[in-house]
Amino acid sequence: MFKKYNIIVVGGGHAGCEAAAAAANLGSSVLLITMNMATIAQMSCNPAMGGVAKGQIVREIDAMGGYSGIIADKTTIQFRMLNRSKGPAMWSPRSQNDRMRFAEEWRLQLESLPNIDIWQDTVKEIIVKNGRANGVVTSLGLTIESDAVVLTNGTFLNGTIHIGEKRFGGGRTGEKAATGLTEQLVSLGFQSGRMKTGTPPRVDGRSLDYSKMEEQWGDEERGRFSFTNVELPTEQRCCWITYTNEAVHETLKEGFEKSPMFTGRIKGLGPRYCPSIEDKINRFAERDRHQIFVEPEGWKTVEIYVNGFSTSLPEDIQLKALRLIPGFENARMFRPGYAIEYDYFPPMQLDLTLETQQIKHLFFAGQINGTTGYEEAASQGFIAGINAHQRINDLHELILKRSESYIGVLIDDLVTKGTEEPYRMFTSRAEHRLLLRQDNADARLTPIAHQLGLVSDERLEQVKQKVASADRIVEYLRTHSVDTDAINPILQELHTSPLTQKTRLFHILTRPQVSIGDISRTDSGLATLLSNFDKAIIEQAEIKVKYDSYFEKEIEIVNKMRRMEDQEINPEFDYTSLVSLSKEAREKLIKVKPRTLGQASRISGVSPSDISVLMVHMS
Amino acid sequence: MFKKYNIIVVGGGHAGCEAAAAAANLGSSVLLITMNMATIAQMSCNPAMGGVAKGQIVREIDAMGGYSGIIADKTTIQFRMLNRSKGPAMWSPRSQNDRMRFAEEWRLQLESLPNIDIWQDTVKEIIVKNGRANGVVTSLGLTIESDAVVLTNGTFLNGTIHIGEKRFGGGRTGEKAATGLTEQLVSLGFQSGRMKTGTPPRVDGRSLDYSKMEEQWGDEERGRFSFTNVELPTEQRCCWITYTNEAVHETLKEGFEKSPMFTGRIKGLGPRYCPSIEDKINRFAERDRHQIFVEPEGWKTVEIYVNGFSTSLPEDIQLKALRLIPGFENARMFRPGYAIEYDYFPPMQLDLTLETQQIKHLFFAGQINGTTGYEEAASQGFIAGINAHQRINDLHELILKRSESYIGVLIDDLVTKGTEEPYRMFTSRAEHRLLLRQDNADARLTPIAHQLGLVSDERLEQVKQKVASADRIVEYLRTHSVDTDAINPILQELHTSPLTQKTRLFHILTRPQVSIGDISRTDSGLATLLSNFDKAIIEQAEIKVKYDSYFEKEIEIVNKMRRMEDQEINPEFDYTSLVSLSKEAREKLIKVKPRTLGQASRISGVSPSDISVLMVHMS
Ligand SMILES: Cc1cc2nc3c(=O)[nH]c(=O)nc-3n(C[C@H](O)[C@H](O)[C@H](O)COP(=O)(O)OP(=O)(O)OC[C@H]3O[C@@H](n4cnc5c(N)ncnc54)[C@H](O)[C@@H]3O)c2cc1C
Ligand SMILES: Cc1cc2nc3c(=O)[nH]c(=O)nc-3n(C[C@H](O)[C@H](O)[C@H](O)COP(=O)(O)OP(=O)(O)OC[C@H]3O[C@@H](n4cnc5c(N)ncnc54)[C@H](O)[C@@H]3O)c2cc1C
Repeated sequence: MFKKYNIIVVGGGHAGCEAAAAAANLGSSVLLITMNMATIAQMSCNPAMGGVAKGQIVREIDAMGGYSGIIADKTTIQFRMLNRSKGPAMWSPRSQNDRMRFAEEWRLQLESLPNIDIWQDTVKEIIVKNGRANGVVTSLGLTIESDAVVLTNGTFLNGTIHIGEKRFGGGRTGEKAATGLTEQLVSLGFQSGRMKTGTPPRVDGRSLDYSKMEEQWGDEERGRFSFTNVELPTEQRCCWITYTNEAVHETLKEGFEKSPMFTGRIKGLGPRYCPSIEDKINRFAERDRHQIFVEPEGWKTVEIYVNGFSTSLPEDIQLKALRLIPGFENARMFRPGYAIEYDYFPPMQLDLTLETQQIKHLFFAGQINGTTGYEEAASQGFIAGINAHQRINDLHELILKRSESYIGVLIDDLVTKGTEEPYRMFTSRAEHRLLLRQDNADARLTPIAHQLGLVSDERLEQVKQKVASADRIVEYLRTHSVDTDAINPILQELHTSPLTQKTRLFHILTRPQVSIGDISRTDSGLATLLSNFDKAIIEQAEIKVKYDSYFEKEIEIVNKMRRMEDQEINPEFDYTSLVSLSKEAREKLIKVKPRTLGQASRISGVSPSDISVLMVHMS
Repeated sequence: MFKKYNIIVVGGGHAGCEAAAAAANLGSSVLLITMNMATIAQMSCNPAMGGVAKGQIVREIDAMGGYSGIIADKTTIQFRMLNRSKGPAMWSPRSQNDRMRFAEEWRLQLESLPNIDIWQDTVKEIIVKNGRANGVVTSLGLTIESDAVVLTNGTFLNGTIHIGEKRFGGGRTGEKAATGLTEQLVSLGFQSGRMKTGTPPRVDGRSLDYSKMEEQWGDEERGRFSFTNVELPTEQRCCWITYTNEAVHETLKEGFEKSPMFTGRIKGLGPRYCPSIEDKINRFAERDRHQIFVEPEGWKTVEIYVNGFSTSLPEDIQLKALRLIPGFENARMFRPGYAIEYDYFPPMQLDLTLETQQIKHLFFAGQINGTTGYEEAASQGFIAGINAHQRINDLHELILKRSESYIGVLIDDLVTKGTEEPYRMFTSRAEHRLLLRQDNADARLTPIAHQLGLVSDERLEQVKQKVASADRIVEYLRTHSVDTDAINPILQELHTSPLTQKTRLFHILTRPQVSIGDISRTDSGLATLLSNFDKAIIEQAEIKVKYDSYFEKEIEIVNKMRRMEDQEINPEFDYTSLVSLSKEAREKLIKVKPRTLGQASRISGVSPSDISVLMVHMS
């Protein structure tokens, strides 16, 4: 009853939405099959996007023509640029979002793309013909054909929900789990594993005493994720901060003997960096308090997300402990926190394009690959959608480099190193993070997306203009100097030592105390120049100057490593013939099938001497 | 972990929302327990409120301080007053609604009521102490106490979804069924039954050719449900009409052998008056086409509800047949139609207050009582919520009369006659429908709600003003006459015969061709008077005049019947002692426990001579 589609995307979560949109925008006919159309782009956990390293990912998706940033911007109830006090590599945009509106906007976004059809159903099986994915079979018994399939099942594969000693099947609370698919994939030779994640209780905001908490407002001059000019909501809502204490911890401990985590009922590994509150008090026994962010779930609802209090302890313990937190004395719960265990597929079974090695034209993206987080999922979906399209049209594949994007780091990490616990992005994972900033995601990636056809000429032109304009400012600063008479009073104001001779503006600006605005007060030429450009461009120039020496060093390193990173290895390369490789290296290389020498060097178990062997062989 | 509540409402559908709100507004502390907070007030089937007889119910709920009308008004994408060409007793407001917004507004409405707490969980069991409902046990194993419980489980009790030969457990597509409760209630002595209902496929509006359909716009001068001054959305969306044809019917018949309805897999009876398309072509074989209303699911979404095409045939047959409908040649489906079977409790087990006879302080409302429709559910919920509050506070019960409301008719029908098939409201069910109009719901019911404390003094005053103002206009028309010279030219314009003598305005207005506006052109006193009042009041006066003689007759009938309707019977009355009753009458009277002689007379199997026996005994 269906035509044959170019691409079927299974799952309407963050990964599935971006995958479907990207493939459709490239020209593929896409069928998005998802279990419930009413839950498209549901945020399973906190209603927020971005944050440290994750915000950079959202900017990268946006720079390439994905929608996560746009949807987040449209539905932002509070926006903050985190880490403003640190260097710009650390600046990380984060938004608090209206949960219902976020899902609604994504749904409308998908509906607006003519190449996407939607079908509400559950996929039970992948059709494989001659080693290639050829379509799916659904729980209604439908066979639907396609040239490629992208799986983005999230936490739904054999999902099991735990609250204390109780256990239910489910992909999210109130939603069914998806069964059958794991079993089929395993029978096809895939290896599957089990992971777990958790969510905090939701409480009734009317029952909280905010006077006992610290207010946390959004940025006054608010930023955004998207480089496009999507319109932003004007108002922002307040969040609050409070803390647990020893009484809270003692109470939580009462529930440990019923905890599914400590009694061994949960076998899957959870995200170490996003631990449950019971995990935190267990692992950091020395800390007598933990921070709790009290976050509204939307513009108008009274529902509150208790960020930092993820738990799967029995619900009565959850409530009892909550009520010992300042401001929560009379808290009423709407829904308890819970943990969920689900199947994932260790990502070393994938190629850097996110195609599986086992079955061609089959792509995996999102939580199914062992990651956690909307942003991680969305970015993988975006890349998988693109590569599925490129693959079936015999076009060049898209593999982002570690030196050009967090997305590249993410996928390279997954595919090269695998992951035993839910993988989330951190700035520390990116060795070139100085270059992978949120402010320059467009300069880094929009040209690549433009080449693919995902971004208009006009948009590319804008990015070029932005870069050129910033360069013009930098050039001005490099070529103009200022007299001591003019600048010293200002330097004094800023509590930095006076100059003894005429100095280039560029040089002055490298001082941490001095901003470009300060300098422009002494140089009317600069002031005039700046008045032509908007804030983002001026900021860009300022960052370029201030961190110039760091950037230069970083670029040098990248260039040095480029030899290895650019040295391609044929994926069909026969490692068995290289007897001088260590046994472990040989096995791992066969498993991962690295695309480059650089990737090979990151495989655990592959030593520098193994790399030398490879190098010798290749040159 | 919970305090003891006054009232626990189980289920956040239309019945549950109104029940919780009404009880809370009366002052009870209410806990609303529902399986998924994200689906509160989901419209399971068509995104529309009101319609013939159902629109009247919404007006009645609104007149008494319920919220269904307000929520519908806020989320209306198209409004039409049906049956405008017929007498005002038939005028029926109907709105097409934005599905997502409707659910969102209800949720926010509930959140705005301080007496309502919400808990996401599934109720498995009612706690009964000394023959009284005393709380519930949930699937998390929680015991929550209360003085009364209102069950509004809708289609979720042991729900089974059917599509062709496929069958799944579920309370709605994508949602889990609720198990355990039926079994417990049966073990407590309740009788349960099985019913079914169905829903049509949803299609992608982008795949339809609207040029082949008739446009159907909303009323230009748009009406509303609510008597309050809730702000209405200004724009309206278009709907369309198309028709099935013989080719469609032949195609559907191909699926009959796999139909769960015709193969006997579905045992429950479906709504005769809201039949599936397969039912229609089976039962009305002589009709070569059926009307299909093509209705958008919201303001912005492209999803379309195919009203009139409810079906549980295999999904490929659904699509094949759909595509033979003009305008649907290239239709793409989003979700297939399906049928659902669920448990209900035959409503003769209830009292007119909707309390169960078996267990005191336990109330049933909505689809669980064998009804179908949001409006029917909402109104029952509203009454059950009120009576639960009144009951636990030893306050007088609320039983609306058949002569004063559709809600009274609905509940009296259910409790007195029971129902074997899903019960929906029709104007024909109301013997006094001339009096039960949508325009006078406020005059009929706001005073009653005010007495309960559900409606403010101010609102009551407004209603009184409205009635008094209309009466003033009527009085003017009764006491003023017009000369033939002045009126005859107008009558001629209106193609009605001229007058031969000075005549009362009232008398002239009874002519169907003449409107009050026409008359006011000849009488400046009237024109001035009318200029003081708004449209609703003038319309009210006009209706009063035009249908005066009918109304009078109807009121006479009501008064005549009042003797029987007002003759109360003690619910504890011992019918076994009345040997002259027929055996069937005796059994039925014991079962129903009628509150009045009038109600007794409507019990099937109770004959006029049985009523005489009762009358004799009571006088
Ligand atoms: C309880 C919980 C707590 C979490 N806590 C955190 C946290 O603290 N921090 C964090 O960063 N992340 C957390 N996450 C993870 C975050 O929600 C996910 O990383 C993100 O949603 C993954 O996106 P996805 O697109 O891969 O999958 P999902 O968002 O899970 O979407 C999967 C989609 O696929 C559909 N689907 C699944 N199987 C099928 C099938 N067979 N056929 C058709 N459709 C199917 C589902 O209906 C759903 O629409 C949590 C998730 C859960 C459930
Ligand atoms: C497929 C389908 C087609 C329909 N077609 C029509 C139609 O054509 N015409 C028409 O007039 N009507 C139709 N209806 C009926 C209409 O949807 C219902 O009459 C109306 O929704 C009933 O309202 P309710 O409040 O009684 O129950 P529902 O709207 O069903 O709500 C029940 C609520 O109770 C919750 N719940 C259930 N059990 C539990 C539990 N144990 N614990 C906690 N929460 C629980 C559920 O989560 C849900 O929120 C259809 C319904 C369905 C499902």
